[in-house]
Amino acid sequence: MKMDEFSRIKRYFAPLSSTELGSLGLRDDAAILPVNDSSHLVVSSDALVQGVHFRSEDTPYYVARKALRTNLSDLAAMGSQPVAYTLTLIIGREQQNKTCDWLEKFAAGLACDQDEFKISLIGGDSVTSPGPTTISITIFGKPNPSGSIFRSNAKVGDEIFVSGTIGDAALGLGLLKGEITLDTKEHADHLLDRYRLPRPRTALGKALGGVASAAMDVSDGLLQDLGHICAESNVGAVVEWRDIPISESANLLLNENDNVIELILNGGDDYEIVFTASPSSRQKVMEASDRSNTPVTRIGHINSGVSVSVIDGSGRAMELGSKGYRHA
Amino acid sequence: MKMDEFSRIKRYFAPLSSTELGSLGLRDDAAILPVNDSSHLVVSSDALVQGVHFRSEDTPYYVARKALRTNLSDLAAMGSQPVAYTLTLIIGREQQNKTCDWLEKFAAGLACDQDEFKISLIGGDSVTSPGPTTISITIFGKPNPSGSIFRSNAKVGDEIFVSGTIGDAALGLGLLKGEITLDTKEHADHLLDRYRLPRPRTALGKALGGVASAAMDVSDGLLQDLGHICAESNVGAVVEWRDIPISESANLLLNENDNVIELILNGGDDYEIVFTASPSSRQKVMEASDRSNTPVTRIGHINSGVSVSVIDGSGRAMELGSKGYRHA
Repeated sequence: MKMDEFSRIKRYFAPLSSTELGSLGLRDDAAILPVNDSSHLVVSSDALVQGVHFRSEDTPYYVARKALRTNLSDLAAMGSQPVAYTLTLIIGREQQNKTCDWLEKFAAGLACDQDEFKISLIGGDSVTSPGPTTISITIFGKPNPSGSIFRSNAKVGDEIFVSGTIGDAALGLGLLKGEITLDTKEHADHLLDRYRLPRPRTALGKALGGVASAAMDVSDGLLQDLGHICAESNVGAVVEWRDIPISESANLLLNENDNVIELILNGGDDYEIVFTASPSSRQKVMEASDRSNTPVTRIGHINSGVSVSVIDGSGRAMELGSKGYRHA
Repeated sequence: MKMDEFSRIKRYFAPLSSTELGSLGLRDDAAILPVNDSSHLVVSSDALVQGVHFRSEDTPYYVARKALRTNLSDLAAMGSQPVAYTLTLIIGREQQNKTCDWLEKFAAGLACDQDEFKISLIGGDSVTSPGPTTISITIFGKPNPSGSIFRSNAKVGDEIFVSGTIGDAALGLGLLKGEITLDTKEHADHLLDRYRLPRPRTALGKALGGVASAAMDVSDGLLQDLGHICAESNVGAVVEWRDIPISESANLLLNENDNVIELILNGGDDYEIVFTASPSSRQKVMEASDRSNTPVTRIGHINSGVSVSVIDGSGRAMELGSKGYRHA
């Protein structure tokens, strides 16, 4: 029997995890490991597999940066500031005959993002494999001084916000795969770039400490990830389709093809932050947006339901594909 | 061009590492990450790839334990006590059709060693891959209260010690591969067991804090690993062949086949600790051995040379294969 990632973790690994040591039941973006009475370290791990999370033809410079940035995004969603990381690089068959060239570009990508995010490599492992190249990173951050942001604290009545624009990365991947076409080069480039290089919302995450009630990064798709917040918080959510921030490039595609709606709502790889906050914190949310220079849009609210629904302009629930979330 | 692991790390990754953040130039068994002014966390990562570090037919119960124990061994060599770990499990093609059964046994192996070593899982990632199953673990430990033990502090005149017996795991692998035969089942089982299940020397590592001048775990082979201590400490070493502790089982093979000498000196996977200590600390070394209930044997001394040599009973340097170490 095949199982999805969340079922695997819940069934086999959550029973091995320690609440005392900050595992959060393996149900959040990171662990918060106590180091002594007064200090904690935020710890998150994320792996990219060639052929699954990146394409063989992707340049190692971008693969390295994507690997770092997906990890940085997990810390951002906890409100944590990154400090350091370990890298376990499993060099696959295809790369072994061009190791020097590949590694040089890969290391240059890491160096670039180390500068940008003020982090450093502290350890890891480097092995070869007869299979695909795989990059396994564990990243370390300082907890948010105003308090870490968990998935599990959304309250009925909270407003739901999202950073940036949603759907661009999934559309970029669609373009790369030839499933979608877009004639305007400028817009196509924008979408491709969003797929290729996540922008972890580190500054926004920092600013949301003490402001957001719950947060998660949008890696698997807006509805699925908002569904995780709802499941952990034991609440439901209503999202207004017309309020979801969509880029000009995505809008061009949306005007041509209704199926794009599904990609926007359920596509992954945006690495924006979806978060909730009490209505009384709306001013603070806007200040956090200003302070971090990150656009933030209100897209709905938390209710006492058991699912995430999306409503259209006339208030009717939209019919969506299979990714809809419903908790017990 | 192909490069070995150490060249890859030195050329591409060491320049990305931060001394300030305790990377030790990526040249030791673990990093020592400062968390605040008074606290550090010892961090090490180690990956096992199916077909490279374990065999497809190995049971997941033992694969899990081996993955944890190779990481525990790195901490032991730093004198650190383990606390927690993150697991990134890359489930390969072969395992995907029997995921439940495989994961159940894998998780049971982790649970067993969590109990034994008093550690817990705090996070990780779980993905699938079209290639081999790969286990990437990052482990966290408390620094030794009497001071961490580095590779770089061996001094001319220090004595060299090793825990347990050397060569068993490589001979066990030889038996598994059918390259060696041994008729006595009891002895064959002993060697197979040494290959299958490393015994990280956690208690000895703890006891050696403030006693050993340098240490490393024997994962790549005694001469190669002692060579790393010498390279980092800028010294040479002389090892006396007759003093190397060899199990009764290994001795049986040795009596039949001279080639076994090479396997004992250069084979890997023993996960014993090779360490150095000042001659004035010999009593303390023996106390550490007693306290940790771990046999320790003096096998040679550090000199001002540039290589590791092995001498026979008459004091002559033995001719050995290509793994000999020589630093600039």
